[in-house]
Amino acid sequence: MNKPLNSWRPVASHHDFSIHNLPFGIFSTDFRDPRIGIAYGDEIIDLMVLFESGLLGDLGEQDLALYYSDKLNGLMEEGKAYRVALRDRLQELLSTDCQDLQEDTALHSEVFVSMANAKMHLPFHIPNYTDFYSSEQHAINVGSMFRDPDNALLPNWKHLPVGYHGRASSIRLGSDAVRRPRGQVLALREDIPKFQPTDKLDFELEMAFVNGKKTALGAGLSMDAVEEHIFGFVLFNDWSARDIQKWEYVPLGPFLGKSFASSISPWVVTLEALEPFRVAGPQQEPPVADYLQHPPQKKYHFDLQLEVALRVKGSDKDEVICRSNYQHLYWSIAQQLVHQASNGCNLEVGDLYASGTISGENEGSFGSLLELSWNGSKPLQLQNGVKRTFLEDGDVVIMRAFTQRDGIRVGFGEIRTEILPAN
Amino acid sequence: MNKPLNSWRPVASHHDFSIHNLPFGIFSTDFRDPRIGIAYGDEIIDLMVLFESGLLGDLGEQDLALYYSDKLNGLMEEGKAYRVALRDRLQELLSTDCQDLQEDTALHSEVFVSMANAKMHLPFHIPNYTDFYSSEQHAINVGSMFRDPDNALLPNWKHLPVGYHGRASSIRLGSDAVRRPRGQVLALREDIPKFQPTDKLDFELEMAFVNGKKTALGAGLSMDAVEEHIFGFVLFNDWSARDIQKWEYVPLGPFLGKSFASSISPWVVTLEALEPFRVAGPQQEPPVADYLQHPPQKKYHFDLQLEVALRVKGSDKDEVICRSNYQHLYWSIAQQLVHQASNGCNLEVGDLYASGTISGENEGSFGSLLELSWNGSKPLQLQNGVKRTFLEDGDVVIMRAFTQRDGIRVGFGEIRTEILPAN
Repeated sequence: MNKPLNSWRPVASHHDFSIHNLPFGIFSTDFRDPRIGIAYGDEIIDLMVLFESGLLGDLGEQDLALYYSDKLNGLMEEGKAYRVALRDRLQELLSTDCQDLQEDTALHSEVFVSMANAKMHLPFHIPNYTDFYSSEQHAINVGSMFRDPDNALLPNWKHLPVGYHGRASSIRLGSDAVRRPRGQVLALREDIPKFQPTDKLDFELEMAFVNGKKTALGAGLSMDAVEEHIFGFVLFNDWSARDIQKWEYVPLGPFLGKSFASSISPWVVTLEALEPFRVAGPQQEPPVADYLQHPPQKKYHFDLQLEVALRVKGSDKDEVICRSNYQHLYWSIAQQLVHQASNGCNLEVGDLYASGTISGENEGSFGSLLELSWNGSKPLQLQNGVKRTFLEDGDVVIMRAFTQRDGIRVGFGEIRTEILPAN
Repeated sequence: MNKPLNSWRPVASHHDFSIHNLPFGIFSTDFRDPRIGIAYGDEIIDLMVLFESGLLGDLGEQDLALYYSDKLNGLMEEGKAYRVALRDRLQELLSTDCQDLQEDTALHSEVFVSMANAKMHLPFHIPNYTDFYSSEQHAINVGSMFRDPDNALLPNWKHLPVGYHGRASSIRLGSDAVRRPRGQVLALREDIPKFQPTDKLDFELEMAFVNGKKTALGAGLSMDAVEEHIFGFVLFNDWSARDIQKWEYVPLGPFLGKSFASSISPWVVTLEALEPFRVAGPQQEPPVADYLQHPPQKKYHFDLQLEVALRVKGSDKDEVICRSNYQHLYWSIAQQLVHQASNGCNLEVGDLYASGTISGENEGSFGSLLELSWNGSKPLQLQNGVKRTFLEDGDVVIMRAFTQRDGIRVGFGEIRTEILPAN
């Protein structure tokens, strides 16, 4: 574990965006177009300004377009070594021991942009999006409700990280409100579905990682090499219309019950920032196939606390309804990505790989209303006597992820998404 | 029905790329980078040359980058009116009655590039790819083999065009060989899957259409407006590894059994070229929901003959093993796209929507080896005593699509794809 670093521009110790984090995002201001920034406390470090100032040294020999870009994909393509060097230099520039930026006070008002004055944008272009299904408890819960409690896990589940291709076009920032979708719904004891606004709008608490290094078609990917590909992580809310999903999903999987929207955080936390928080995953029994075996001596899961809060319509309070942890995944992100490439499928820079709903073993850690209300049969009892089975118009869903150890805190901030009524 | 047009540069009457077709593609030559071309007989019309010559008139007021591009997406964004005007002007320039290009003989060697001297490229960027499942006979065949012959069609099938999101990254031209993928396969009477090259490599005979006009998230799309969005069509081979697919696909649908490769034709035949070949679709019973109802007085299906041929390893002959027709789809492309957008999901320019395997009612029209060999139980008897259940290394799969009426022929050429052994 690293020792906490001290900065001449200190950030409160409980802040997600510490000197140990330095997540990437895309922001714009009134006076300048979208460009790459780094979240630091309540401010954004404008990388373009640092670049032009010469303070990035050798790292500044790139074209300005690398930072003056409305997408992180170009930076991802520079590779891990460049990204790590940039991170190291930024930590150095912010450190008490370094005078370079500290003494150049005239530059401070340009380098540090208040988040209050910035607009955030979708941080990267997403050529392909896959959603996995890697939490054992979530798979058991869903299998119990929709299929058979005695055989909730299907035979393939412990042999491969089950996943499906999702719709990339409708992925948005969490700050964009989500409109209740319409779709075909089959009522109980009916034969003919109705086309109507969903009655079972739900969130799914997920994390997603973004691929930063492409592979050629046919090349595959080994467990030894896979983490070179992982650029970083975002919060991910996989909105779901349970009634639409139930009617449509057999035999080809989720489609319109999911594709109306997914929400991500504006800040991408790098793999490097999460390094100190690696933990061992669950024992995998039966043993997984050779191509999915983790190399020994390294940990492939991450201790990251996750929270979902709800602010019901008309309330002025967020109420936490779920506390989970990223380490509850049975399949690691390394296994997910190796499996994705195992048939020769090529990976592209910006591909997004979501975890699937992350539910822990106790009820308070279930990561969707489907599970928390057991498909509507056990309404959630909220403050002031309010109940919820699924989401209502005007509700706001808040997701957070953070981790803290030995005085080092790294987090994702939050995403906060309002539900709009159907058109 | 239009009268056949006569050209001063005639094309043989049996040729797919007639003056009535004029499909778009991306080609390059030794002396110039990829750019937009039009297939005409055995030649390619270099649109950039026509543009620079001034012969496109008002249509030439665009930026040169519109045609000097390695993707058709920009041209798609110009919209249907531009595309139709371009088509009209090209037909005029090629017509016997028009002297403009005919007399400018010095230009001919630049405008007309022999296909033999050109390399074709993937014609457009594909932001999203959906595969539907819209042939009733195919759904019945698959449901009979894998589930229950007495309930082969699932309850949702006649109420909505079932589909799933596919992997866009691995879509290639048909001329690119396809490597046999590896994956997890569960042998009969085994509990533990093996990771191995697929034993059941298959093709699927499909057509796909490309969306040429975007929609905003939440906007939806009406049956009246949907065909404004359809730019054109390509041949589509949805390669499938049946054993991998069988083990992985429950409950979230096809994944690695499909994502290793899909093949398309280099030429995109426009909706305009297929207009004369519209036919009525099947009676839909039970009646479909209002949002999927075809407006009266118009036909939404297309009479397009489809063929699959096989050239087995070591042979020098193509042998036709399937003859089908695009009109065998139960769901029209209009219904597919309206359904895709019905939950508010936004459409992007270049999105590709495949039909699903197009099987007719008789065995000779089944569009996959899975169906033709009834999952391997009835091997295909080929010339010279050769048998096939699924594809072997070195086999070449050929797909063709064409239509002809009243002396007007429009076709897609062919795609011809070789199977390479597993890595």
